[in-house]
Amino acid sequence: MTDAHEALATIRAGFCLSPERVYLDGNSLGALHDTVRRRVDTVVGDQWGKDLIAGWNDHDWINQPSAIGNRIGQLVGADPGEVLCCDNLSINLFKCLTAALELNAPRTRIITEAGHFPTDNYMADGVAQLLGPKRCEVEAVPVEALSTLDFSDVAALSLSHVNFRSGTLRDLPGITARAQAAGALVIWDLAHSAGVLETALNRHNVDMAVGCTYKFLNGGPGSPGFLYIAKRHQSASNPLPGWMGHADRFAFEPSYRPAPCISRFLTGTQSVIAMAAAEAALSIFESTDIATLRQHSLMLTQYLMDQLANHPVTRDIQCLTPYPAHERGSQVSLRLEEGFPVSQALIDRGVIVDFREPDIIRFGIAPLYNQRSDIDVAVDTLADILKSGIYREERFSKRGTVT
Amino acid sequence: MTDAHEALATIRAGFCLSPERVYLDGNSLGALHDTVRRRVDTVVGDQWGKDLIAGWNDHDWINQPSAIGNRIGQLVGADPGEVLCCDNLSINLFKCLTAALELNAPRTRIITEAGHFPTDNYMADGVAQLLGPKRCEVEAVPVEALSTLDFSDVAALSLSHVNFRSGTLRDLPGITARAQAAGALVIWDLAHSAGVLETALNRHNVDMAVGCTYKFLNGGPGSPGFLYIAKRHQSASNPLPGWMGHADRFAFEPSYRPAPCISRFLTGTQSVIAMAAAEAALSIFESTDIATLRQHSLMLTQYLMDQLANHPVTRDIQCLTPYPAHERGSQVSLRLEEGFPVSQALIDRGVIVDFREPDIIRFGIAPLYNQRSDIDVAVDTLADILKSGIYREERFSKRGTVT
Repeated sequence: MTDAHEALATIRAGFCLSPERVYLDGNSLGALHDTVRRRVDTVVGDQWGKDLIAGWNDHDWINQPSAIGNRIGQLVGADPGEVLCCDNLSINLFKCLTAALELNAPRTRIITEAGHFPTDNYMADGVAQLLGPKRCEVEAVPVEALSTLDFSDVAALSLSHVNFRSGTLRDLPGITARAQAAGALVIWDLAHSAGVLETALNRHNVDMAVGCTYKFLNGGPGSPGFLYIAKRHQSASNPLPGWMGHADRFAFEPSYRPAPCISRFLTGTQSVIAMAAAEAALSIFESTDIATLRQHSLMLTQYLMDQLANHPVTRDIQCLTPYPAHERGSQVSLRLEEGFPVSQALIDRGVIVDFREPDIIRFGIAPLYNQRSDIDVAVDTLADILKSGIYREERFSKRGTVT
Repeated sequence: MTDAHEALATIRAGFCLSPERVYLDGNSLGALHDTVRRRVDTVVGDQWGKDLIAGWNDHDWINQPSAIGNRIGQLVGADPGEVLCCDNLSINLFKCLTAALELNAPRTRIITEAGHFPTDNYMADGVAQLLGPKRCEVEAVPVEALSTLDFSDVAALSLSHVNFRSGTLRDLPGITARAQAAGALVIWDLAHSAGVLETALNRHNVDMAVGCTYKFLNGGPGSPGFLYIAKRHQSASNPLPGWMGHADRFAFEPSYRPAPCISRFLTGTQSVIAMAAAEAALSIFESTDIATLRQHSLMLTQYLMDQLANHPVTRDIQCLTPYPAHERGSQVSLRLEEGFPVSQALIDRGVIVDFREPDIIRFGIAPLYNQRSDIDVAVDTLADILKSGIYREERFSKRGTVT
């Protein structure tokens, strides 16, 4: 093993993963690392439990959003002071969209990607409904149309770095440059790319970005979101100007004065426990680097696609994920007519994947803890299930609340 | 001891409170209860750690906002399906304010209380700035002016149930009825009343309310906020329409369809760990009831005021908190010119209070864990500090980030 791979093996050993299961759903919810569990216990029992209100100063809870934001910034290629960890992705996108409209006035048009994660488009439509047609219009276009779209009257373009259904990686530098050349601002959703591949936001002059910490960043179920706003855009207004974004929070002034930095995009108080879990999870990345993780992720996704293509039982399944490395995120998505029952039979056999309507099985690859043997088990199990037809049993067709 | 007082003693014993300190800051950050600590450990280690993505169904994480909302509903006098636990107070107020403007169109005027907690007024001003003067105007008036104000063109009135500085309890039934008689909708901030006194939202026909769970509800630092929207108003739009408010979240439909219930006021994913802590903290209230807590709280605040008034060293200090029980929340606020150094000297001596600019010391009374002996220690210590003049030492004048 190289040093880089030894470091990954050490990291992997710290994750709480049952040897009886193969977890391939880190693109939906990352796994728990020992570091995170210990940190939560310390923050709850020692910090809150013993120091109570003094924790805001003594344990620097008050600076969590920017301190954790800076850690995320290192992973996504932003400078210190350009990322905040707070709220959730949807709310952060709302802030970015209205900020972009303000910065790019009098333009009023927002272009979104038709295949965007749905909440992104709901939020953009929500902005349009709130502000009215004279101040905001939203149009969702297929991502393929972006290469010929006229951006000359577009205020903001909002799209996903990696598509949640297919796992396709978009050309962030190219799309950003093309839209910006016509004066549009570009907002990327990094939910499926942060922590598994290089986003290099500053190098590619990205205007704004949002993401979450509960997928490949392993912050825990529903852990906080983040937003990136390039320094040059930080004069914009926060449409949700709560006391945490005030220039002097504890002066309790009657009028709002925005902080002269990224902190103006804060609103209310964040959960210190949730933030601490996210911070601990981010600290794991200090033992490795994005280039190593990307290499390992690409190796695993390619190995999975190759094994599927070579296996007599699985070789005819349609793979939605592109084969070229530069077009691939960190998941492999298969289209199967019987996708739902097959996904449930896989889970029943200990291969944890997920299903997306109407017919997609997603195999998420988390390079911090997935390894080659996971792929072998997944492919063998899938082949078994398909060959035996066991997925046709009625119990695999029952839909739960979350699939 | 009565049964009710025995129950309180049992609850108190479960709180992690050092015998060397008197904690009188539960109106800022509630204390940790063993139940909460154990619950967080279970949710992190057993639920997330072992069950991973399956937790959303198997542990019903997906329904936390409404399930926990219903628990809060019981404490504030709302029916099931009228309260959600989510986001933070500021963001929830934004949702209520825009919903009220929509419900009460074509009225555009929002009245807020001049002495409101600052974030409430910042958020209202933020709505006005976002929507523009034709759709929203905000005016902050002294709360005393509300009894003669003409509400006939007012869309919404936003104010605090208990004032954060003085601890004054407002006449919720009277103010609500007066504003509603002229067609205004009323939004109460329950941050300083939920969990310590009866709010009876439905009985008093309150339209909307917001609050937090980190003060008297003991959910932990920065734990989630809540919002109450009376059933009759739940047809309003959520201005932040994220996927968690969709009628069919996991269908991933391209267009937003609001849930046909309070859940439409959800936006993104909530921290499951933070929510679980809040839920465990709320479960503590099952062993008692609001009437008992209110009685105990009033006894303690009155005892504190009486002791201060009777002590030769403290009797001339101005008390901002009203003496009549029906005008008092669950804190006692003193005005002292040397308030800041005196508060720091109290903290140094183990009496944890807080300070609010420019000259207010707040003694928060959490009836779940404060008792008569806390008051004795607090008054004796305050008298000692004033008499000895120790608060004049330079070290007590240094201001931290959070006071």
